[in-house]
Amino acid sequence: MSQDVQPIEPGVSLNSCLLDQINQIASCTVLSELLDRLLELCCRTTKAEYGLCYLPDLTTNTIAVEATWGIEARERLLGIQFGFEEGLAGECFQAKQPFIFKSINQDIFMKVELNALYRLALLNVATVPLVVSGEVVCVVQCYNYHESDLANLQLTLNLLAPHVQKLSLLQASQDRAHRLEGLVGMLHAINSTYEQESILTTIIEGAKQLLNAEASSLFLVDESSGDLVLKISSSQEGVSPKNLRVPAGKGIIGYVVETGESVIVADAKKDQRHYNQADDVTHFVTRSILAVPLRTRSIQLGARRGATEERIIGGLEALNKRKGTFASDDASLLQMFADLAATVLQKAHLWNEANELYLDVIRAFSAAIDAKDPYTQGHMERVATNSAAIAEELGLDPETIHHLRVGALLHDVGKLNVGDAILKKAGPLTPDEYEVMKGHPLRGEEILRKVHQLQTETSAILQHHERLDGKGYPNGLNDGEISLVGRIVAVADAFDAMTSDRPYRKHLTNEEAFQRLLAECGISYDEECVHALFRAYKKKAITFQH
Amino acid sequence: MSQDVQPIEPGVSLNSCLLDQINQIASCTVLSELLDRLLELCCRTTKAEYGLCYLPDLTTNTIAVEATWGIEARERLLGIQFGFEEGLAGECFQAKQPFIFKSINQDIFMKVELNALYRLALLNVATVPLVVSGEVVCVVQCYNYHESDLANLQLTLNLLAPHVQKLSLLQASQDRAHRLEGLVGMLHAINSTYEQESILTTIIEGAKQLLNAEASSLFLVDESSGDLVLKISSSQEGVSPKNLRVPAGKGIIGYVVETGESVIVADAKKDQRHYNQADDVTHFVTRSILAVPLRTRSIQLGARRGATEERIIGGLEALNKRKGTFASDDASLLQMFADLAATVLQKAHLWNEANELYLDVIRAFSAAIDAKDPYTQGHMERVATNSAAIAEELGLDPETIHHLRVGALLHDVGKLNVGDAILKKAGPLTPDEYEVMKGHPLRGEEILRKVHQLQTETSAILQHHERLDGKGYPNGLNDGEISLVGRIVAVADAFDAMTSDRPYRKHLTNEEAFQRLLAECGISYDEECVHALFRAYKKKAITFQH
Repeated sequence: MSQDVQPIEPGVSLNSCLLDQINQIASCTVLSELLDRLLELCCRTTKAEYGLCYLPDLTTNTIAVEATWGIEARERLLGIQFGFEEGLAGECFQAKQPFIFKSINQDIFMKVELNALYRLALLNVATVPLVVSGEVVCVVQCYNYHESDLANLQLTLNLLAPHVQKLSLLQASQDRAHRLEGLVGMLHAINSTYEQESILTTIIEGAKQLLNAEASSLFLVDESSGDLVLKISSSQEGVSPKNLRVPAGKGIIGYVVETGESVIVADAKKDQRHYNQADDVTHFVTRSILAVPLRTRSIQLGARRGATEERIIGGLEALNKRKGTFASDDASLLQMFADLAATVLQKAHLWNEANELYLDVIRAFSAAIDAKDPYTQGHMERVATNSAAIAEELGLDPETIHHLRVGALLHDVGKLNVGDAILKKAGPLTPDEYEVMKGHPLRGEEILRKVHQLQTETSAILQHHERLDGKGYPNGLNDGEISLVGRIVAVADAFDAMTSDRPYRKHLTNEEAFQRLLAECGISYDEECVHALFRAYKKKAITFQH
Repeated sequence: MSQDVQPIEPGVSLNSCLLDQINQIASCTVLSELLDRLLELCCRTTKAEYGLCYLPDLTTNTIAVEATWGIEARERLLGIQFGFEEGLAGECFQAKQPFIFKSINQDIFMKVELNALYRLALLNVATVPLVVSGEVVCVVQCYNYHESDLANLQLTLNLLAPHVQKLSLLQASQDRAHRLEGLVGMLHAINSTYEQESILTTIIEGAKQLLNAEASSLFLVDESSGDLVLKISSSQEGVSPKNLRVPAGKGIIGYVVETGESVIVADAKKDQRHYNQADDVTHFVTRSILAVPLRTRSIQLGARRGATEERIIGGLEALNKRKGTFASDDASLLQMFADLAATVLQKAHLWNEANELYLDVIRAFSAAIDAKDPYTQGHMERVATNSAAIAEELGLDPETIHHLRVGALLHDVGKLNVGDAILKKAGPLTPDEYEVMKGHPLRGEEILRKVHQLQTETSAILQHHERLDGKGYPNGLNDGEISLVGRIVAVADAFDAMTSDRPYRKHLTNEEAFQRLLAECGISYDEECVHALFRAYKKKAITFQH
């Protein structure tokens, strides 16, 4: 320690003018404003040329410049962090006592400050801690001061120190509340969709925003290989190299997924675990990392079913914190978000699996029923595809199209209850046999009658042989009574029947089929549906047997 | 205003001893502690006998006792709220100046304080505001004081006022962060289940806890009648009268659901909208109410499907705030929770509907296939029920039982591709016909082969005619090769076949069937499964045709 260090003796009186100033400063409720005014008061009192004010951060063991006085390069200095051992302000924080340097001669204790203030001619410096209950809450430095009696300054700072402490606590608490509010907003976004890609995008953008990071990335475990697959990535430049793979256990992300621990890396270059192959691909320079596991909770499935297991489905990384370094409260916040996000993601996965299973089962039955008659193989699947294409041309909403597709996949389900003798008959049917065959829409409706959720689907089954002129079956409905779904499936069904071979005739060409459909518009078929089919056909959205 | 009111002149000096005391008090970072010590200092300085310290609440326009000095009934006084117009402390808050009453003679300005302190002999009182930037942040009252020169007191309070202000802000911010954290925790709980009842319980308990309310209740709109149905209720006494109905638009909750607005009712007795029929049923005395709508967001369904509509599905009420009254920040917090909870609830509803739809469709196909042969009507449904009963006896997990049930519902699905001539033949089958019939497990597996998620189910289909001795079909698997699911369905299938009529024989009695199954244990059937079936039969968990 330099020889000219002198402790400041506490004074015993406070004049009314100074008291007024203190009271004014103390009325600030914004930390940065309080620090600016406090530093100004110190510099004016000591007739100093330049001033710096620092706040310590115990979570990262650093001390950062939070206010300046008389210095032009203010913006460059604000936010600069030093380790506690790296400069005089840090030393003052640790020693909890003021240091007076009456002359500055490149003292080793000051290397950080001298570096930061390298263009200024510095003569002397007083470094004073603001102490509350034995803890330093702030450090003030006055450079090139002229008033060496610093007793009043220390007294002033004693009175202001508890204000700094309280506003530091307030700011931390407000930051926390603000971030939690942000987190709740993100939960709104991820909760209102079952679309995996959309959830992933929100998670990744959310992580970046929550932690004020330059970029973030999300990896999901590939269940077959165990690799971690980059699902989506977000950085300032919008670079998102999808499908990057990291082998299991490799890199920070591999460590996090394997151990279930969160990891903070202050300097990625120095961390052995950092898998810089990712940086090579993305040309992104990773400085600092906060990585947390994506751990889904056990999800109760309801309806006499069990629960999924709690497990780690991947990992989430925030990269390069914009201000300062990642700290433990960042980690706990990101983990809180990741836990919720992983569970929401898993629920979306379950939902999509359930939808896929449902459609696959419907398709399997549909195909099996069609396959009873080799001449109708693939018929219902084609009618479903073409009905959906017509509906899209007509601008129907996706949910109606979904139900229409299912209905079309099942429109001939009643053939399950039409005997093989009729269904597979090689020649033409007798009138009696034809009557049985014409019962298939009713038989189909009977089969699915107990499935209350199939409303739209039932129309497809019951009405696909109705005609606008009322001469269709089974109910002889007329134009106004047939639903749009019924009209669409009727057109798609007729087109597929016409363009397919039958035991008793060859298929029509597509052109012949369209001519026949057009000729029957307004009689058998809905004109708009026929035109929509034709438009879809022109766009190659229509499938047919040949 | 009484004649003996005197303003206090601000002093100009502060002795070192007082400064030390102020500094010590200022180091407090907990509001209640600061107020206690501040009040003690005031009472000691003025040699007062009793003291009260109040904080204003601008969201509810009240002033509440937050610290006492020298008063035994401390616990009874803390938290008492007065309107700004109701007492001297409120008057002082509004006037922003001190009042000195040198004698107390039941002054009308003091009615509230006199009522609160009714057992104490009160002689005089100084009521002093703590002012920061022209706003009163705190009011102190010193009763029976002896030191009438209050200049130093005012000076002290001037220095402490900004600390009170900051800690008030800090406490509010910490409360907010704490409540948001609580909210996030509740989201964890409601997000990790698809069970509606469990979600409802968490919402209701969560609302109570978040708002520190005595009770809370949740109403869902009954879609058919529009009534609001009390789904679950939570109060201190654990009273939960389910299925109480409130007609659409009635009561506070009806108003909230109809308008989508949140409502705060400070005094339920005075609010015309309060539907006190609910109180009559529950014997719960509702004092204050905070009600918010349960508004579900639009949910994207994914997989080329559409989105559900945003709508109000019910309402959530918190009843009787334990301390103070409901304020706007309570309302915004509860609304935030309700929005998320409603969306989670709606997703659970969608999930349960999807599961129900899936099972209903499987059941419909199962029944239709069984119905092709009048002798097997209801067979697969019974085998499914009995397979599940066996599995429960064996202690299998619910998820396996779910898949087993689906597999059993479909175990004969291959009969779809066995011709009517064989399936419906009245007499015994020829050897060739029997070979075709024996192909039905393979035909079933073929039908569902493309449905990748049906693993367990495929075992039920493929293995239900295998025998432990290897003489079963289609693959002649031996004991070690047959899955547990295959063994279970084999037993359930055999039992149902034995106890049902066939064209060529009458059914066996249940006792005869069990004897035959037992005789074949270890040869055809798995002994544990047969015993489990018998145990379930004894518990009346088994269904059969007769």
